[in-house]
Amino acid sequence: MIKLVLAPNAFKESLSAPAAADAMERGAKRARGDIVCAKAPVADGGDGTAEALVAARGGEMVRVTAGDPLMRPVEAAYGLIDGGETAVVEMAAASGLWRLREEEKNPLETTTFGTGEMIRHALERGAKTIIAGIGGSATTDAGIGMAAALGYRFLDADGNELKPVGGSMAKIRSIGADGVAPQLREARILIASDVNNPLLGPEGAAPVFGPQKGATPAMVRELEEGLANVARLWKAQMGVSMDDTPGGGAAGGLGAGLMAFCGAECHSGFDLIADFARLDDAIRGASLVITGEGRIDASTRFGKAPAGVARRAKKQNVPAVALAGGAGGDLAPLHEIGLAAVFSIAPGPVSLEDALKNAAEYIERATEQVTRLWLSRY
Amino acid sequence: MIKLVLAPNAFKESLSAPAAADAMERGAKRARGDIVCAKAPVADGGDGTAEALVAARGGEMVRVTAGDPLMRPVEAAYGLIDGGETAVVEMAAASGLWRLREEEKNPLETTTFGTGEMIRHALERGAKTIIAGIGGSATTDAGIGMAAALGYRFLDADGNELKPVGGSMAKIRSIGADGVAPQLREARILIASDVNNPLLGPEGAAPVFGPQKGATPAMVRELEEGLANVARLWKAQMGVSMDDTPGGGAAGGLGAGLMAFCGAECHSGFDLIADFARLDDAIRGASLVITGEGRIDASTRFGKAPAGVARRAKKQNVPAVALAGGAGGDLAPLHEIGLAAVFSIAPGPVSLEDALKNAAEYIERATEQVTRLWLSRY
Repeated sequence: MIKLVLAPNAFKESLSAPAAADAMERGAKRARGDIVCAKAPVADGGDGTAEALVAARGGEMVRVTAGDPLMRPVEAAYGLIDGGETAVVEMAAASGLWRLREEEKNPLETTTFGTGEMIRHALERGAKTIIAGIGGSATTDAGIGMAAALGYRFLDADGNELKPVGGSMAKIRSIGADGVAPQLREARILIASDVNNPLLGPEGAAPVFGPQKGATPAMVRELEEGLANVARLWKAQMGVSMDDTPGGGAAGGLGAGLMAFCGAECHSGFDLIADFARLDDAIRGASLVITGEGRIDASTRFGKAPAGVARRAKKQNVPAVALAGGAGGDLAPLHEIGLAAVFSIAPGPVSLEDALKNAAEYIERATEQVTRLWLSRY
Repeated sequence: MIKLVLAPNAFKESLSAPAAADAMERGAKRARGDIVCAKAPVADGGDGTAEALVAARGGEMVRVTAGDPLMRPVEAAYGLIDGGETAVVEMAAASGLWRLREEEKNPLETTTFGTGEMIRHALERGAKTIIAGIGGSATTDAGIGMAAALGYRFLDADGNELKPVGGSMAKIRSIGADGVAPQLREARILIASDVNNPLLGPEGAAPVFGPQKGATPAMVRELEEGLANVARLWKAQMGVSMDDTPGGGAAGGLGAGLMAFCGAECHSGFDLIADFARLDDAIRGASLVITGEGRIDASTRFGKAPAGVARRAKKQNVPAVALAGGAGGDLAPLHEIGLAAVFSIAPGPVSLEDALKNAAEYIERATEQVTRLWLSRY
């Protein structure tokens, strides 16, 4: 029996990871009809994480109405696997920068409240574990929006409740925890993130990520003060220090907020998702692993999904090969970590538009050819 | 020992076959330094045939001054292998359409004389076998130009010698063979061609290939009459019928002319060159054969070099894989004839200009990846 593991990441702007795995399966079956394909689409905590895990494990996407970064109601979706025991919430689904027009980007005005609403919805449906993918945020609010949706209250010097947006952080004088959803205490919250920046300081959330979310230099200073104020309150009221915690600065401080407000653990995005996707089980007994991503180059080895897949395949002595929309630069570091080969899916000189539009077909064709070459050795 | 055979055709408008084989060797050695590479660049009788055979067998390119299609002296080159015993003459080197500006194209005025000069030069240097690659001609002269250079004379009704151009064919009343180079009688002349059209009729040299050489409909009729006249004289004076001979219409009747004037044999271009390149010897004991061409699609199976390489590899049960500048359409027919897989060398969405300019680098990279995937099975 020849078993292939098909473990692509999403091809950005083009194809989801499950759709890429489906295309790979069609190609492999064209090479040889009786080949066994284990589809294990992967993700790194970013866009498409929920969909990939639902595809890898079976499960469902749950649609909810949640607030966008400006608290306008939008439809967002999260994933449920393990018979509803585990939810996969992507913060960007509700609170992502993609929800805003250019002129709306303003981290003083935006909130992670919608992310909290999704988490609360999942908890109320009975989820005991929440995987939180936190990439692509529009916000710099230390997660106070998320916390507010789960029942926390943020009060100013006069005891008035503040709107949980970035601009309110500096005005908070106390945090109220009386109304916190009871399910939160028993739940296990796992952050999937590859951002290791701390909450505060020159490498922190405000100066590094603020500008791309619309912050001016003056706003960056105001946000930094606000984040520092929230961090002081965590220490004073909750006995939690987030000062040096790696990943605290992810998603505008949502990383720190999830850890402080919800007791979340921070994990490497790829590894967390791969564990839940049971990638190692899929690789067991396989002849070849095929992974892929939109772009593969030397930087892929730093936490990107194809590198993670290759490392896991190597542990079991199974060769891994990657397909890329574009493959460039020095690939030697990737060969070193266990990626046997990297192939572009481009069938010749094509435009970017063509490549994005026809990615499924090109992935199918490239997979067929890789599989055929592989099988020619049998 | 792992032995790769590197047997690419030229990548048109971009890279010669030997340069493509060199790029493949660099890529294979990057995959594994101790791999044994047998370079066997191939050709189909067209552009680059001489260079490919000289590279495959060792030998030299000989520069000569010869007449272009309008009898202007130009520098052309042919190949010598087998210690000078065998010459490889590409008619296009002297008599090719590429030698003319658009307004100069006129098959009534053009001649294969320069091709004959190259053949004569080779014979006088002692070549006993002439391989004649006959693609890309500017001419429709039934080879009378070529024959004139070798000593034939073409006389009109008044016994005057005619200029050996297409427009003279209809005026010939007798062919003089007194001055024919003596070496021609002992020489073996082998035509490398994939054109099977006959000399005359609706599928003949004048109507099918005349227009692309600048012939108007009236000129096509005049050329057809001329070709028919030469064919009558071959029968009457030399006892040779070219009426139904496949390949007689190749290169404006140069195919028929080489057969009638020089006793040439007509061969499939790829197979003839592959035999002289000793491709089968190179494949013996190999682990994998890598071939390639600028464009690979379903039509490649009809006499194109990658298909020929694959068939020869299959006979020895060695897998073959092809690299293409562009790979499109239904590749199933190629898999059926023994091509295990086809990969594009494009590293992602690139322009045609980029692909042509960087073909050597892209071939090197693709070969490295193919070799790595292949080796990962050991």
